[in-house]
Amino acid sequence: MQGVTILGNNSAVPAFDRHPTSQVLTTREQLYLIDCGEGTQIQIIHYKIRRSKIHRIFISHLHGDHYFGLIGLINSMGLLGRIQPLHIHGPAPLWEILQLQLREADTHLPFDLQFHPLPAEGFVAEDKNTVVHCFPTNHRISCWGFLFEEKQPTRAEKDAGRTRGLSYAFCADTRYDPAMAERIRGVDWMYHETTYLDELRSTAEARYHSTTRQAAEIARQAGASHLLIGHFSSKYAELEAFQQEAAEVFPNTYLATEGTTFLFR
Amino acid sequence: MQGVTILGNNSAVPAFDRHPTSQVLTTREQLYLIDCGEGTQIQIIHYKIRRSKIHRIFISHLHGDHYFGLIGLINSMGLLGRIQPLHIHGPAPLWEILQLQLREADTHLPFDLQFHPLPAEGFVAEDKNTVVHCFPTNHRISCWGFLFEEKQPTRAEKDAGRTRGLSYAFCADTRYDPAMAERIRGVDWMYHETTYLDELRSTAEARYHSTTRQAAEIARQAGASHLLIGHFSSKYAELEAFQQEAAEVFPNTYLATEGTTFLFR
Repeated sequence: MQGVTILGNNSAVPAFDRHPTSQVLTTREQLYLIDCGEGTQIQIIHYKIRRSKIHRIFISHLHGDHYFGLIGLINSMGLLGRIQPLHIHGPAPLWEILQLQLREADTHLPFDLQFHPLPAEGFVAEDKNTVVHCFPTNHRISCWGFLFEEKQPTRAEKDAGRTRGLSYAFCADTRYDPAMAERIRGVDWMYHETTYLDELRSTAEARYHSTTRQAAEIARQAGASHLLIGHFSSKYAELEAFQQEAAEVFPNTYLATEGTTFLFR
Repeated sequence: MQGVTILGNNSAVPAFDRHPTSQVLTTREQLYLIDCGEGTQIQIIHYKIRRSKIHRIFISHLHGDHYFGLIGLINSMGLLGRIQPLHIHGPAPLWEILQLQLREADTHLPFDLQFHPLPAEGFVAEDKNTVVHCFPTNHRISCWGFLFEEKQPTRAEKDAGRTRGLSYAFCADTRYDPAMAERIRGVDWMYHETTYLDELRSTAEARYHSTTRQAAEIARQAGASHLLIGHFSSKYAELEAFQQEAAEVFPNTYLATEGTTFLFR
């Protein structure tokens, strides 16, 4: 895995030119798209992501800010003549939603769209060098985080003394949940939502979201090496305080700013 | 009716910073939104449209570039605390799509969302000063155009000699169809799609779309006063030729450029 590019970092309502959740993970062979809020296909064009290299899309849950852009992206891939199969991994009802929209538009995609419902927990997908598992988060509706792991370190990594491949955890939308730290123990890079600053801890709890210090606490407990934070509430025009508060607990914290690619080395 | 503001003027795939179809019609009391492609809620923010003044949304058909932004807009209206009812007028299956997406997100809107399936043809809605009718267009799937008419001229219009109120026709996606001219005879302003320049007349026919000269021909046959053209194919980076070709048949033609408000007087 070379790194992750942030396409959207805002929570539910778009604001301050920030977009809903979407990230692109660059593996050794292909691109994985993680979540796909409304407008993701525009962000993909804007940040010059090679759409044809996306072979798998992972959707964490069925709140709109995490998937309303998916049908439009699939539709455009079809109109642009894609022929390679596309795999969607998401909550089971997503398939009904996509099929209904394709059927009513009388759309016949020129490529094979394969849907794989997420299991409660465990194995999701595997490619030559990468394996993906999912785990439940603590959210208002069923929601899954994803753990992406390289099966082996690269030759250069081995020479540098690494005994296992790189890993990335996308922790999706969640309340503070110490059980999550166990599930991603020792991860190299992780993304955790910080919808609110720590002053709104009770709001976060009530709305099944997390604060800066809570995200950092999970990263610390997990023994992660790096933490990305995002899913910022539309109340906040400025984001610096998010990084500052999280860094007090976990110094190696980065704001998931849109258009930034975080290289995993 | 004071005028119409263009939020999106591109056909299916977003390109050249142009967006899928959406327009805002300003009536004497409120705003009507016509079609709602992906990203419309962002365009509404960008062009400072007063979202709370939108009381009716009209959806012409279920190709994604005309409605994929609707669920996101509805969702955001709910999150922002809207309480006024919202009326959606569209093809019957749209209601199933919206309900499925709201149900899977466990979303309970704080306002009354009322869905009104479109009849094959005829009366759609009525407000104090405005009445709306629909008519079928000639497209690959069921598609409706809308005719918006003021019931009475304003006092100023009467003083200027007008005997009837202003009218606007949104002709949606369609092949060249002379029957349409009959349905909108004498309209003051009309929008007609011009997906292609006239050199691609056979492509237009095959894909159930229209060319510049065909749109202008309908405006001429209808005896319209003004013609707006849009729904431009992503093949075209430049749009000047659209206006030029249409104006050869119907001089009073305007490009539906995004962000422009066409005042109806």
